[in-house]
Amino acid sequence: MTLNNTQYRLAARPVGIPKPSDWEQTHEPTPEAEDGQFRVQVDYLSLDPAMRSWMNAGRSYVPPVEIGEVMRAAGTGTVLDSRHPDFHAGDTVSGVFGAQRYAVSDGKGVTKLDLSLAPAPVQLGTLGISGITAYFGLLDIGRPEAGQTVVVSAAAGSVGTIVGQIAKIKGCKVIGIAGGAEKCRLLVEELGFDAAIDYKNGDLRAELRELAPKGVDVFFDNVGGEILEGVLARLARGARIVISGAVSQYNSTGPGHGPANYMNLLVSRASMTGFVVFDYASRYHEAVAELAAWLESGQLQSREHVVEGGIEAFPETLNKLFTGENTGKLILAL
Amino acid sequence: MTLNNTQYRLAARPVGIPKPSDWEQTHEPTPEAEDGQFRVQVDYLSLDPAMRSWMNAGRSYVPPVEIGEVMRAAGTGTVLDSRHPDFHAGDTVSGVFGAQRYAVSDGKGVTKLDLSLAPAPVQLGTLGISGITAYFGLLDIGRPEAGQTVVVSAAAGSVGTIVGQIAKIKGCKVIGIAGGAEKCRLLVEELGFDAAIDYKNGDLRAELRELAPKGVDVFFDNVGGEILEGVLARLARGARIVISGAVSQYNSTGPGHGPANYMNLLVSRASMTGFVVFDYASRYHEAVAELAAWLESGQLQSREHVVEGGIEAFPETLNKLFTGENTGKLILAL
Repeated sequence: MTLNNTQYRLAARPVGIPKPSDWEQTHEPTPEAEDGQFRVQVDYLSLDPAMRSWMNAGRSYVPPVEIGEVMRAAGTGTVLDSRHPDFHAGDTVSGVFGAQRYAVSDGKGVTKLDLSLAPAPVQLGTLGISGITAYFGLLDIGRPEAGQTVVVSAAAGSVGTIVGQIAKIKGCKVIGIAGGAEKCRLLVEELGFDAAIDYKNGDLRAELRELAPKGVDVFFDNVGGEILEGVLARLARGARIVISGAVSQYNSTGPGHGPANYMNLLVSRASMTGFVVFDYASRYHEAVAELAAWLESGQLQSREHVVEGGIEAFPETLNKLFTGENTGKLILAL
Repeated sequence: MTLNNTQYRLAARPVGIPKPSDWEQTHEPTPEAEDGQFRVQVDYLSLDPAMRSWMNAGRSYVPPVEIGEVMRAAGTGTVLDSRHPDFHAGDTVSGVFGAQRYAVSDGKGVTKLDLSLAPAPVQLGTLGISGITAYFGLLDIGRPEAGQTVVVSAAAGSVGTIVGQIAKIKGCKVIGIAGGAEKCRLLVEELGFDAAIDYKNGDLRAELRELAPKGVDVFFDNVGGEILEGVLARLARGARIVISGAVSQYNSTGPGHGPANYMNLLVSRASMTGFVVFDYASRYHEAVAELAAWLESGQLQSREHVVEGGIEAFPETLNKLFTGENTGKLILAL
């Protein structure tokens, strides 16, 4: 069976937000599966802020995507044909298949999905890397205690929505930082956050002073920049800052914006710790089991933002992450 | 007995390095000791980089020195007369007596010194706050393990000289960062550091790459600014950065220089933790006992830089800390 593939390859390292010319759309027949391989039709692509950092050259927590390579992207799909003993035609699978319509896989890093547990988009988000990131970042690095104040930035995003809800489950006061009134409404009215700060239309420092009079015990940061500085100015004694991302910096064309008031770490005897979810791979099952139980009981709500655009919509849909247009897990349906 | 006091009071909040006009020299008779008080002749003043931060307005880990107040300073002295049951004329004492020739004390925070243990300047430095800061900051926050690479900035200063030597005692590879060839020579030839980087005349990043090929496991930072950024670029996986001070920033007149590459904390799964020695007050005796034993055995060397200037030399001697003129613990002999 000939499968005509459509792929997005990195054509140039972006300066700032990726431009159409940073991508090359290619068409080629998908190779047949060899022994130990199978072919997947990708159904849903996971779009994540960290993808922007993979497009830059240089040392990071994963190697950069090289020029000419198919853009790295996680997704779910359907096995079309297989010469792999563990995967069979019709299986629904999850893996890093890339920004393309079809992929050939040797099964490495691929898991089979049980769709009776939750639809594929939920398994890509809340029960996937986003949920697992929220789970271990908050609980293992942030270590919130009941009664403490937890702040999360990019709170309406795929990770942020889950961080805040887990913190509520753990008995904390939860403040989300998000851009725009609608996102803030969602956090408080639908997801049970105690408060939300609209950083685009408010005074972050003044609102934090009012909402967290005793200071912030845990800050789960996905944004960096001025938002990190604003929270650093309001730390409680012994606070923990979890550095999970820095979406404000990924498209930066300058030397990067370091937290000018980082010495508040000393004033508050606080820590700032970098966190990469891949280090917890051997414990993913723990997170998924507990997240699934919370979903089942209704204590946790999953929010997906599925764009029905097909693979051709990949470049523009990815950019929604950087213009703040998505709410919850951003997914491209192919 | 009338004691004519000479004092240095804060006249203005300095912008940058303190100027003579930021101080007011005052002369007044020292009050008599009342019940529960004693009078001290201050013999040695401890001069520490953190004093610069106390001169700024605003929230810090201790209240700022107010305009018109005698400058806060630790020191050692001799009790002249006493109406306090625990202190007697002739006792040698250590406490925060201020930048003045004579002080009246109620004994709070004052300890008696046993000069048979070590001379007063050693007890003010290596067996005082500097040594205790090095001890708990390195061992409790930095948690170095034998064979790991430890880097310390302001390495030729009062805290840095001790941090490096303790790290050597613990079996680490130790690299000091200091300004000038003579300081670097001292670190390697006299204090047993494995290497020293002269940040004024070298390429910090290139030298670190060569000296710490597997990365830096523990960084004890007293400086901040570009030195912090240079080390952030060379972290080993799981590195611990101890934020003990930021002498490069204390005289900054701008908004402060945050570490632009702080996202290397994420790349390296590293932490940056603020540390204030005062939190360890109930455990000071542990540090002093072990530091004294190391001094006794010759594993630890104490370095004091005693300026025989009298109280009138206070303003200019303090500034040596900011122009990098001191080596080891800077002390003004009155």
